[in-house]
Amino acid sequence: MRRQNLALVLGAVAAHGPLSRADAAAATGLTRAAVSSLVVELLQGGLVVELGPAPSGRVGRPGNALALSPRGPAGLGLEVGVEHLAACVVDLRGEVRAEARLPAANRGRPADAVLAELAGLAERVTAEARGLGLRPVGATLAVPGLVDAATGTVVRAPNLGWSALELPGTLLGLPLVAENEANLGALAELWQGGALDVVHVSAEAGIGAALVVGGRLFRGARGFAGELGHVPVRPDGPDCACGARGCLEQYAGEQAVLAAAGLDPAPEDQVGLLAARAAAGEPRVLAALEQAGTALGTALSGAVNLVDPAAVVLGGAYAELGAWLLPGMRRELAGRVLVRPWRPELLTVSALGRRGPLLGAALVTIRRILDDPGSAAASGPPRSAG
Amino acid sequence: MRRQNLALVLGAVAAHGPLSRADAAAATGLTRAAVSSLVVELLQGGLVVELGPAPSGRVGRPGNALALSPRGPAGLGLEVGVEHLAACVVDLRGEVRAEARLPAANRGRPADAVLAELAGLAERVTAEARGLGLRPVGATLAVPGLVDAATGTVVRAPNLGWSALELPGTLLGLPLVAENEANLGALAELWQGGALDVVHVSAEAGIGAALVVGGRLFRGARGFAGELGHVPVRPDGPDCACGARGCLEQYAGEQAVLAAAGLDPAPEDQVGLLAARAAAGEPRVLAALEQAGTALGTALSGAVNLVDPAAVVLGGAYAELGAWLLPGMRRELAGRVLVRPWRPELLTVSALGRRGPLLGAALVTIRRILDDPGSAAASGPPRSAG
Repeated sequence: MRRQNLALVLGAVAAHGPLSRADAAAATGLTRAAVSSLVVELLQGGLVVELGPAPSGRVGRPGNALALSPRGPAGLGLEVGVEHLAACVVDLRGEVRAEARLPAANRGRPADAVLAELAGLAERVTAEARGLGLRPVGATLAVPGLVDAATGTVVRAPNLGWSALELPGTLLGLPLVAENEANLGALAELWQGGALDVVHVSAEAGIGAALVVGGRLFRGARGFAGELGHVPVRPDGPDCACGARGCLEQYAGEQAVLAAAGLDPAPEDQVGLLAARAAAGEPRVLAALEQAGTALGTALSGAVNLVDPAAVVLGGAYAELGAWLLPGMRRELAGRVLVRPWRPELLTVSALGRRGPLLGAALVTIRRILDDPGSAAASGPPRSAG
Repeated sequence: MRRQNLALVLGAVAAHGPLSRADAAAATGLTRAAVSSLVVELLQGGLVVELGPAPSGRVGRPGNALALSPRGPAGLGLEVGVEHLAACVVDLRGEVRAEARLPAANRGRPADAVLAELAGLAERVTAEARGLGLRPVGATLAVPGLVDAATGTVVRAPNLGWSALELPGTLLGLPLVAENEANLGALAELWQGGALDVVHVSAEAGIGAALVVGGRLFRGARGFAGELGHVPVRPDGPDCACGARGCLEQYAGEQAVLAAAGLDPAPEDQVGLLAARAAAGEPRVLAALEQAGTALGTALSGAVNLVDPAAVVLGGAYAELGAWLLPGMRRELAGRVLVRPWRPELLTVSALGRRGPLLGAALVTIRRILDDPGSAAASGPPRSAG
């Protein structure tokens, strides 16, 4: 009961803060005395801070305003991409306080080496965060592939060449959980006020999607829902790294688009390269992106006809290519979605873009703390996201 | 509270009957006195009947065993297919007690005429049921298209040529609700003990699917989920009645298969015709069914990669073509589903076959009665299925 009430008060501060103890009592329906006692615990745990006296229309002594702490417990987000590694620390308010990103050629690279380099990056951002008074209490790793959250196993990540890879349960002494990167991108969007019934596309080297249903992640029977990148676009199309043929990734994945555009891979940022060349008006690049947008739209039309979401969001690095991808996507959706008219504004671009999955990874720990403030003190057991 | 307890006792009789009042008390956790009082009401409502004395290990007077009534309240199921009309009455035990099916060329036929003929068929089966002591208290209509259950509107049924068709709220004085036929086929399977996380395909002239998630129908944000027939198989394939191109129906729908098989449509039963010719070993028919199975498997692979069900069920009339469709479906699923190995036994054929949607339609009313026994007396307001 006290744990639930702690979460209630912390939730009120998160949703409406800064606010006084009296306002917290009004928002939660708890007595002023109960709130005061709970606030003592939240202050001791470093979860809230007192700002100056709160303005109040009430008679009597003005109370100090409470706000989520910009120090104290924090979440560590980690990401293994096909071409990069990234880490960030987010405070209780959801603000990124330390962040680092490294280019890395991870395709086919031994997982040990990838995780060792990632640990170095994580050490750097956590040290920086500690210097700011933050204390990371949990870590979540975003992976471009199928993750079995219950066992911490990466079942299959075709673009990395990982399969049946068991991840360590801790990193830098923090409990570590893994999660599909598209799921984390969708959660980041959802937790920042996004729509409740969404197909959230997360595209870069690989193409994934997350299905959000009624404000919750839809995981499927075994936890592997959302593999949009391996929806067939043309059944007899090119061979895919997954072993099938004609998957969406073979038409809209980064490598396919670079090849169609006649570009050599950049040393680091393929999406940045494509955006720059498209902005410069290079006809082959424009045609390649048009073709990719059309393929994305074809596969998404099938997804929309199957799951009937209220909105489709383009996230991941491809959010930066929205200007060139959206016309083809919208044309396909308008022509193929059975419930008509399909309104073009139902497809939007995520403002988080390529930072979504990393931010979502860090926010998993923050959401866990807000749901159960006691877990921050104990660094509670790892749980799955969403 | 009493309504809930009525449902509790009736549910115990449905799940474990015939059983004595004492056993019903044990199964529900209610007192023997409470059960006896509730049973009086269930007997008066004609929902349960007393059989002979129940065998009992208990000391004391043996009680009469209670069972769901084979008379009394019943459900009327109705179906408009592209090539047929059907109606049936199901008793509380879920048994079909009266059933009629008419061939009918409904493609493009005025909805008024279709519904008038259907009403005649409904009148015939309800009269037959009344002769058996049954009293239909609600009707549900299975439609091959998008149904807005909240407003009773058929939003779009491309193969019938219906769009924005408002259905009457009653038929023969019974409250009438409409529901997508694939959804009803899936519910029939689920309510008869089927798996809890399923993509249920319902194929005939049109091809639909229902997604069952955690034992509940997944409807999507607006209620239009499951349109497998309009998942693109080849983006630049033949024109579809829906206005798009290359939809699954253009490869695996009845008309497409007949054309590929070089057969003229039969006066009545296309699927029966295909099954007969395939059983006779006609090479063109076998090839056409092989191609249809492959297209079904391609579209289903995308669906499985997106929603990760625990099982896939082939229902509807095509269940009768399983012998010829399944090899191609299984080959595609094995080659394209990202989570491997994909086990062939995850795809099964519904034992209900083409009767599934009609049976599901009748069972909607039965489930409503079991959930709220009081509604049978009052012929309560129509509610949506699932």
